[in-house]
Amino acid sequence: MKTYESMTKEELLAEQTKLLEEYKGYENAKLALNMARGKPDPIQLDLCREMFDCVNSKSDCNSEGGIDTRNYGEMEGIPEAKRLMAQVMECDPSQVIVFGNASLNIMYDTVSRAMVHGVCGGKPWGKYDKIKFLCPVPGYDRHFAITECFGIEMINVPMTADGPDMDMVEALVAEDETIKGIWCVPKYSNPTGITFSDETVRRFATMKCAAEDFRIFWDNAYCVHHLYEESDRQDQLLNILEECAKAGNPDRVYEFASTSKVTLAGAGISAMAASENNLNDLRKIMTVQTIGHDKVNQLRHVRFLKDRAGVDAHMLRHAAILRPKFELVERMLSEEIVPLGIGSYTSPNGGYFISFEALEGCAKSIVAKAKAAGVVLTGAGAPFPYGKDPKDKVIRLAPSYPGIEELEMAAKVFICCVKLASVEKFLEQSA
Amino acid sequence: MKTYESMTKEELLAEQTKLLEEYKGYENAKLALNMARGKPDPIQLDLCREMFDCVNSKSDCNSEGGIDTRNYGEMEGIPEAKRLMAQVMECDPSQVIVFGNASLNIMYDTVSRAMVHGVCGGKPWGKYDKIKFLCPVPGYDRHFAITECFGIEMINVPMTADGPDMDMVEALVAEDETIKGIWCVPKYSNPTGITFSDETVRRFATMKCAAEDFRIFWDNAYCVHHLYEESDRQDQLLNILEECAKAGNPDRVYEFASTSKVTLAGAGISAMAASENNLNDLRKIMTVQTIGHDKVNQLRHVRFLKDRAGVDAHMLRHAAILRPKFELVERMLSEEIVPLGIGSYTSPNGGYFISFEALEGCAKSIVAKAKAAGVVLTGAGAPFPYGKDPKDKVIRLAPSYPGIEELEMAAKVFICCVKLASVEKFLEQSA
Repeated sequence: MKTYESMTKEELLAEQTKLLEEYKGYENAKLALNMARGKPDPIQLDLCREMFDCVNSKSDCNSEGGIDTRNYGEMEGIPEAKRLMAQVMECDPSQVIVFGNASLNIMYDTVSRAMVHGVCGGKPWGKYDKIKFLCPVPGYDRHFAITECFGIEMINVPMTADGPDMDMVEALVAEDETIKGIWCVPKYSNPTGITFSDETVRRFATMKCAAEDFRIFWDNAYCVHHLYEESDRQDQLLNILEECAKAGNPDRVYEFASTSKVTLAGAGISAMAASENNLNDLRKIMTVQTIGHDKVNQLRHVRFLKDRAGVDAHMLRHAAILRPKFELVERMLSEEIVPLGIGSYTSPNGGYFISFEALEGCAKSIVAKAKAAGVVLTGAGAPFPYGKDPKDKVIRLAPSYPGIEELEMAAKVFICCVKLASVEKFLEQSA
Repeated sequence: MKTYESMTKEELLAEQTKLLEEYKGYENAKLALNMARGKPDPIQLDLCREMFDCVNSKSDCNSEGGIDTRNYGEMEGIPEAKRLMAQVMECDPSQVIVFGNASLNIMYDTVSRAMVHGVCGGKPWGKYDKIKFLCPVPGYDRHFAITECFGIEMINVPMTADGPDMDMVEALVAEDETIKGIWCVPKYSNPTGITFSDETVRRFATMKCAAEDFRIFWDNAYCVHHLYEESDRQDQLLNILEECAKAGNPDRVYEFASTSKVTLAGAGISAMAASENNLNDLRKIMTVQTIGHDKVNQLRHVRFLKDRAGVDAHMLRHAAILRPKFELVERMLSEEIVPLGIGSYTSPNGGYFISFEALEGCAKSIVAKAKAAGVVLTGAGAPFPYGKDPKDKVIRLAPSYPGIEELEMAAKVFICCVKLASVEKFLEQSA
């Protein structure tokens, strides 16, 4: 196969004609496909149907210690739910508070609290003229939406194969007292799929921070979300809570996780893990905000998943559904795009995303073309603060939701759009 | 029966001796009773056991319009849950957003949002040197905790039999641009049990407010919580959303409600009702905060309760459990306390509380004595901002949680403590 770059103008025009015909066919098919969000396939949700029966009309609704989960109280969650989430996050139950159905909400609230009340007795972030967050890019759009919503300036930090560029992170946080946080998806990162190296985690734990109230927002959303059963294809992430404690910086990190992609995306349970100081700081405000989250759902979860072994076994069932989808898209990209020299992609061992890198300046065009042909992708630019991809080249692909046949069709359309946009780019250059 | 006031010192001393003996008996009994919080009796929670079966392993989990309740999305709640909560709040589903398990959390978030982002384009409340809230007293301690936590100054407004003293409210809000809100429990008020009169509601809707972003926080927690079936013993509350719209002030009110005391105190659903402007203002931030609340629980609720008629029928079952408890405590107070001239109490037609008024300066003493004898009451002062009851006389009684026999014992202890504290007061005066 000839790369586009090596084609003459005539060859490019012939390729364009062929692609436009293919594209027209997709348009005429009136497709309605979606690869935009990391949304589970309904058959994944079916995997935990039995969970509903774990609390039924005949059930004992008491948790350990005789707490009636149906009534008020137990703000921090029932003991067995704390234990389960501690096992998922690989820490001690005393480091965990269990919340409602979404870790995103915990993260928003954590930033909101810091803005208004400050962190562990520090000046409220909202009282500064300006504060800043470091944002490894490409990253998760909903993280950036939170910081943007609070008027926090966001600084792009490039992602490498080992995590964020730590030279840059260290240099910035050491000097600037107004840098208050960093967003991280440390395992099976959204969207690149990489897992932070041990060295990256250690550097996070040990680095010097100008701001005492600097916090790492460690969104461990995909901590148990392997795509493969073989241990050599399961990424391992160093425990940041432990590393921070060892380094004498126990309060540096807030860790978040949920069962949104273990049980139910809309009706799971979520948790934060942090040091005693951080949890006490949270408790002071949390006790004003709520009497407690839904403990019946916590009970349902523990009765169904039981423990970490139960979670791991359950995740293999998800992997069996997800893996063929990832492999299909990766194979198609490897066969159809890579040989043309018009893009590259990541092959993660877990998580929910493939990150695609188009030729510079092509991402917006590809997404727009796909949309017009009935395939919705994550907006170009979404993985960057303010929605601005400086090189207009990253597209996040989310293969989880469509069925395998729909996914194949969506990938075909996507590939056609990548080719079309790339041809256009080379034609412009040759004009 | 002779009133304490009319007793001689010798008679008071004799009475004290008798009471101390009775009190000692309670101390020796090592009681552990609780009348502190408006917590449902477990047998009330049993009333909705069948709700758990409404979503089971075999269930269709789709809501109206084919939304899979288990997956992400539908931030505002499923259509049938919006309709149910609209029926409960007597408004249109388009005026409703459904949230998670607690309306307290919505209220906290609403204040928090106003502090950071402002209300409908107004200056963020946190940017003022000082803002204030009006707090009808006695009122709900958790409301006051929210405003205190955000550093909002609280101004006491006395409650009357018709609601807050509206002459005072009108005079204050007309003049002071920094008064941004008022807390109201308009029906079966916490703790006095009264329902705001039609005139009070209309005055709220029509009054002139110096601050355009003044908002009434209308916590309609007990909107369907009658204790009696007879219609003449069911309080009626004028619809504030309608009255505000009629008066040309549609954006003046945020209304809150939940099923915490309809289905499950820890695992219900909650909602906010407000004007289109207010909801749009909320949506802008809410979309950053969460992808959506637990829609499976919403589905469960609608399948169990069905509609307003279903809710009303269910509430009669609660009333059958609660009513004898209220009547027991009221009868005991009427027989044992009133004739002695040492206290008065409210006889609400609904809600969760009886408000007791002791002699001035006696509330703290009564609560402390009860605690020492094993009966936990709501802290004296709790129904007032900053926990300060200026006359130290109001005690909120919550008769819902204990079984009827425990409740009788708790009430006996309480009555003994009221008498003891009152005797002490008169003895001090005669000293």
